[in-house]
Amino acid sequence: MNKAINVYVVIMAGGIGSRFWPRSRERSPKQLLEIAGEKTMIQNTVQRLNGFVGPKNIFVVTNKLQKSAVAKQLPTLPAENIIVEPIGRNTAPCIGLAAMFVHRLDPDGVMVVLPADHVIRDEKEFLRVMDVGVKVAHESSALVTIGIQPTHPETGYGYIQIVEDEKSKNGALPGAGVFRVKTFAEKPNLQTAQRFVESGDFFWNSGMFIWRADVILNEIKRSLPELHGYLMSIEPTLGTSLFEQSLEHAYGMIRGISIDYGVMEKTEGVYVIRGDFGWNDVGSWDEVYRLATKDEQGNHLHGRIISFDTKNSYIHTNDKLVATVGIDDLIVINTHDAILICKRGASQDVKEIVDHLRRKQMNEYL
Amino acid sequence: MNKAINVYVVIMAGGIGSRFWPRSRERSPKQLLEIAGEKTMIQNTVQRLNGFVGPKNIFVVTNKLQKSAVAKQLPTLPAENIIVEPIGRNTAPCIGLAAMFVHRLDPDGVMVVLPADHVIRDEKEFLRVMDVGVKVAHESSALVTIGIQPTHPETGYGYIQIVEDEKSKNGALPGAGVFRVKTFAEKPNLQTAQRFVESGDFFWNSGMFIWRADVILNEIKRSLPELHGYLMSIEPTLGTSLFEQSLEHAYGMIRGISIDYGVMEKTEGVYVIRGDFGWNDVGSWDEVYRLATKDEQGNHLHGRIISFDTKNSYIHTNDKLVATVGIDDLIVINTHDAILICKRGASQDVKEIVDHLRRKQMNEYL
Repeated sequence: MNKAINVYVVIMAGGIGSRFWPRSRERSPKQLLEIAGEKTMIQNTVQRLNGFVGPKNIFVVTNKLQKSAVAKQLPTLPAENIIVEPIGRNTAPCIGLAAMFVHRLDPDGVMVVLPADHVIRDEKEFLRVMDVGVKVAHESSALVTIGIQPTHPETGYGYIQIVEDEKSKNGALPGAGVFRVKTFAEKPNLQTAQRFVESGDFFWNSGMFIWRADVILNEIKRSLPELHGYLMSIEPTLGTSLFEQSLEHAYGMIRGISIDYGVMEKTEGVYVIRGDFGWNDVGSWDEVYRLATKDEQGNHLHGRIISFDTKNSYIHTNDKLVATVGIDDLIVINTHDAILICKRGASQDVKEIVDHLRRKQMNEYL
Repeated sequence: MNKAINVYVVIMAGGIGSRFWPRSRERSPKQLLEIAGEKTMIQNTVQRLNGFVGPKNIFVVTNKLQKSAVAKQLPTLPAENIIVEPIGRNTAPCIGLAAMFVHRLDPDGVMVVLPADHVIRDEKEFLRVMDVGVKVAHESSALVTIGIQPTHPETGYGYIQIVEDEKSKNGALPGAGVFRVKTFAEKPNLQTAQRFVESGDFFWNSGMFIWRADVILNEIKRSLPELHGYLMSIEPTLGTSLFEQSLEHAYGMIRGISIDYGVMEKTEGVYVIRGDFGWNDVGSWDEVYRLATKDEQGNHLHGRIISFDTKNSYIHTNDKLVATVGIDDLIVINTHDAILICKRGASQDVKEIVDHLRRKQMNEYL
């Protein structure tokens, strides 16, 4: 079935991941680090697509600082498949730009948009959901998004509500586990998140999308006509020596906006497919600790470490010896020029450190 | 009065101070570090003697690894006043060796023995006590020790018990605040320490001693005849080119023993002088934190540090940036090759790390 459809994957890899400081830096953000496993997150993201699409059908959208590292980490990818944004303008321009690349190859081509920095435990189920999504997107001209079955009332994610009365008549929809979207909800407070999870009508918004290239470009034209105009100014230069210049020019004027807020929420007839494949967006050092293998004391130790009376801690050192005595519930990250010591549960606040570095223009640490 | 007496100070500076790892190393032990103040502890120890004795009357006993650092830190000291033991054999041989140096200059000379690594807040009162001690040692041919008025039931120190019925008839003793010693007690458990402190009969053993050179050599002869014999084998080579060789030979056979256990406890008629001059032996990082200046959050921060929601912590970094988030009651020491992270209250266990390094022969960190 899929053989008749041209499928392209667009991996969004422009994030700076300041929550993983001091390991994540402007030149080595989260997706380029081996934070959850032996390979980097973007390498895992590409490897996961094995058997789904070939390297020629994978695009990565990144930025200037990270381009060479991306190319080095993904040697099988054709160089022209690495798309470099001159500046980050959130997801809508990024996706619109990539859609033009896909559209040029095949206007009917189905485009799967994936973040570069998520963990997925059940890869087989993930690919099954992708197959369903491709089929739905190809046949229905709809925007399809992947919703994650919530396991707890998380306040760090957006939520997707499905149309309630359709739960009972799934047969009318394009497939099992496919629902029509009622609304997108921003990150809720705890009380609201609890209500969402208890209702059974809400999924986590995973930031994964599936649609035909022509369909998303049309939706951008309808909902974000200004952005569409700038994209069209770039379009004739695709594959020419003028491309970079026209891109710089357009991005200088494009307004940053997310695809969720700019397009998805303004569009009727969006589908969400339920994903239940051990998804984790690895949003903080706390999450990394939760995913990591641990010894009997609940410690994850990487590098030269001597621990005495040390429990439930995540310790990572690149060079110096780290010795710990009588500690509990700590995250310790030692890199070539900086050391982070963070209480477990407080790792969301690591961004406060990065904000401080920016305010004080301590650029060597960014 | 003191003008008629030749006074010599012997500073014992051979300790390795493993409790201050990773700052203290074999080549840079506690006494050679600026752990409590801007100067090193041995520099403070010498400076404190200003007006009491001149540099020519100060001897330092150290070891081969530390010799050059000692000489560099104490440039006013004559080179021949730095006595180098080939190997550490505890305090009795160290003091016996130094006593021979003093004895050669003046057999009646009074010798004040001081550790190199203590903090004394009230230096004026300290020198007053020294003056009393010198007078008592000179006139009574007694062994004199300094006992610290206890402020709490410390289990980390030895104690000195005074002869009880003499508390009321001090007039018969050589001076106010001078007592006859009844017994020396090893480090007690907490219950015993509480009893000691409540009784009012006990002082902390400070490890400071005052006696005439001829008197201590005679006491060593009586209580440790074997050690005395080895010292006498060295004696004729003092100031000759054969000295080092005879020292090596003797120290190869000398048994390690403390002056407290080997001499003081076996001698009748030892005096103790009460010292109440803000003494602290700075035995651990916890003690360093207690002595340090602190900001409003109870933190002592030295070096490039960004702290967010951080309280009651001691942080010292030599090179890398240290960033802390959500932590409490931690000791963080970053040196050129090692990082210690220790819960406050657990710093006695830092020696477990050093023991581990020794067992595993990780000598580069010792």
